[in-house]
Amino acid sequence: MQLQDLETPALILDRSRMLRNINALRLRMAASGVQLRPHLKTAKSVEVARLMMDSAAGPATVSTLKEADEFAAAGVTDLLYAVGIVPNKFAHLARLVRAGVRLTVVLDNVAAATALREFAEREQIKLYVLAEIDSDGHRSGLRCDDAELLKVARAVQPEPSKPGHCELAGVMTHAGASYGAYSTEAKVAMAEQERLAAVAAVHRLRAAGYAAPVVSVGSTPTAHFAQSLQGVTEVRAGVYVFFDLVMAGLNVCAVEDIAMSVAATVIGHQREKGWIIVDAGWMAMSRDRGTAKQPVDQGYGLVCDALGKPFADLIMTEANQEHGILALRQGSIRPLPDLPVGTLVRILPNHACATGAQHDRYEVVDSDTEIAAQWPRFRGW
Amino acid sequence: MQLQDLETPALILDRSRMLRNINALRLRMAASGVQLRPHLKTAKSVEVARLMMDSAAGPATVSTLKEADEFAAAGVTDLLYAVGIVPNKFAHLARLVRAGVRLTVVLDNVAAATALREFAEREQIKLYVLAEIDSDGHRSGLRCDDAELLKVARAVQPEPSKPGHCELAGVMTHAGASYGAYSTEAKVAMAEQERLAAVAAVHRLRAAGYAAPVVSVGSTPTAHFAQSLQGVTEVRAGVYVFFDLVMAGLNVCAVEDIAMSVAATVIGHQREKGWIIVDAGWMAMSRDRGTAKQPVDQGYGLVCDALGKPFADLIMTEANQEHGILALRQGSIRPLPDLPVGTLVRILPNHACATGAQHDRYEVVDSDTEIAAQWPRFRGW
Repeated sequence: MQLQDLETPALILDRSRMLRNINALRLRMAASGVQLRPHLKTAKSVEVARLMMDSAAGPATVSTLKEADEFAAAGVTDLLYAVGIVPNKFAHLARLVRAGVRLTVVLDNVAAATALREFAEREQIKLYVLAEIDSDGHRSGLRCDDAELLKVARAVQPEPSKPGHCELAGVMTHAGASYGAYSTEAKVAMAEQERLAAVAAVHRLRAAGYAAPVVSVGSTPTAHFAQSLQGVTEVRAGVYVFFDLVMAGLNVCAVEDIAMSVAATVIGHQREKGWIIVDAGWMAMSRDRGTAKQPVDQGYGLVCDALGKPFADLIMTEANQEHGILALRQGSIRPLPDLPVGTLVRILPNHACATGAQHDRYEVVDSDTEIAAQWPRFRGW
Repeated sequence: MQLQDLETPALILDRSRMLRNINALRLRMAASGVQLRPHLKTAKSVEVARLMMDSAAGPATVSTLKEADEFAAAGVTDLLYAVGIVPNKFAHLARLVRAGVRLTVVLDNVAAATALREFAEREQIKLYVLAEIDSDGHRSGLRCDDAELLKVARAVQPEPSKPGHCELAGVMTHAGASYGAYSTEAKVAMAEQERLAAVAAVHRLRAAGYAAPVVSVGSTPTAHFAQSLQGVTEVRAGVYVFFDLVMAGLNVCAVEDIAMSVAATVIGHQREKGWIIVDAGWMAMSRDRGTAKQPVDQGYGLVCDALGKPFADLIMTEANQEHGILALRQGSIRPLPDLPVGTLVRILPNHACATGAQHDRYEVVDSDTEIAAQWPRFRGW
């Protein structure tokens, strides 16, 4: 089957590009001697996860307990759930642990820590906890010098030398602000800031008597640009597997590295306006406009031919639910390509996590137009 | 089961509000004597569709052939697929017709019309076609006075008085620009503009000898504000079933009419910043920022208590994949509500179609906190 035989819209995965992306970060991590704990939230696919992980059992990171369920069912036994835990998810944690998962969770407050420890003791299940550290002010977590850190540690594990059912395993941080770092210097600096915050926090825990063996950091930009990982024990990254226009705009990858695209078909034109209309709108692309605040705004995506080669300056400028409007980027002096009704195009996404989430499977190609496999995706919570 | 027992995030449907919304448009349409052909793309739910449609067999409108499949399997036999048809979907059309669906499609160009007619003749299936008319310059369609209109008509059905397998059934238009109409006068004017374009186009077809019995118009704002439907035979609308913050911002509904919300749980705070962090981010809310260009920007959604009552000025100001940041609207002088870790909140969406699409089921309540039913949603193409 060929791409041209697809009913559009459809999600395309260029396996050759993906394997190159996976290999690049794997080599970098191997050289550093630090464990990679890939984040599986971008792909939400067992087939892709197996290519990202060091072994079929993990380790890996997830953003939902649904991901944990799916990957556990596929044999992954070492999982970090990287969103602050709250009581309505405790019963779900217990099911995962009883199914054989070594589960690590994160939290940043005494209330959650106390409730979790009481639950683990009552249910007699083992849970590993990382204190979430805020290294850049962008989201959750405690500052590395916050007095609450030791209170949270004690709420998780009252006796530093005696891990109970709830064990304080260390610290985690995520430098989400790295998504604003355009230069190499800025990304290197952000990685160092992320590392220093995590290391400073874990030193406080160790000084208080906790073993706290885990120092978990990461984002795709910092994973690719960190110059030192001293004191770090694991790195998390997710979107590196496919990359996207936001990452290309941040100079973390080239446009030619982007392994995900949406196949769409030309359904009409408004010629006097310079519009080409396609059958992929925000339902297929997502509403993500992550490049809107970057130097080059890619609209809802950059348009390529069936082989994945970009048409110069042609982007999706507007999106309705199932309609996309393709037009030349503002200020472009290029001619509008001649794309008759029925032409297949491929549109590179702003944000692979968001675009992937709109689809239930990947049509897998190897940098050509033949569909080599279909891989399912899952979603939900 | 109560809302407080849910694992969050989760999609909540307030059935009482929805029934009120359905009834309001039904009464309006009944008074006008014009057929309502509800658009099922917002709900993507058989249970909701049955409440919206005049009969279990329809009529109804869909935005994907997957919706057509699902509703056909549930007994709906009169469907309009309202996105310009292209050849990669022809085989799918044939399956639907052979499954007993009276299927109407839309198109605006000779290439698609010719290919469709040839396909219908070759496959010996009956297809109804509406010429898509552009009434406001926002998307697809031919202007009502475009010379192409009669060429398209002839490509669909060469002999005006002899419908073949492919029958020119009339015209359709969608005044998407009504989403920029804030005043009553502007919405009334947009509805009249939509009506006049469709009626003018169909008159040209009828003057050329076509029966063209169908004049299909609609959007939620114009359906609710049209003062005349003279010459119109059916009205399409979708988001009226749930409404959302974009519709409230357009003064089409009140915030208290919004029947969809996302349940989320407080997972932490950044107190010095005035941030409350919840476990619902853009994956649960969608990336839709439809109120960003309205007079009142609601961020990623307006925050309510467990009963659905808004906290004054509290919105989701930022969203990561599974994290949302709640904060007071810029310029607000209200105090930040005290919402401890573990508190359940409900967040009203900017755009019900986009937020609904992120979820696989509705937790149904009747303006209280008891979950009365779970209704599945579907998606994809």
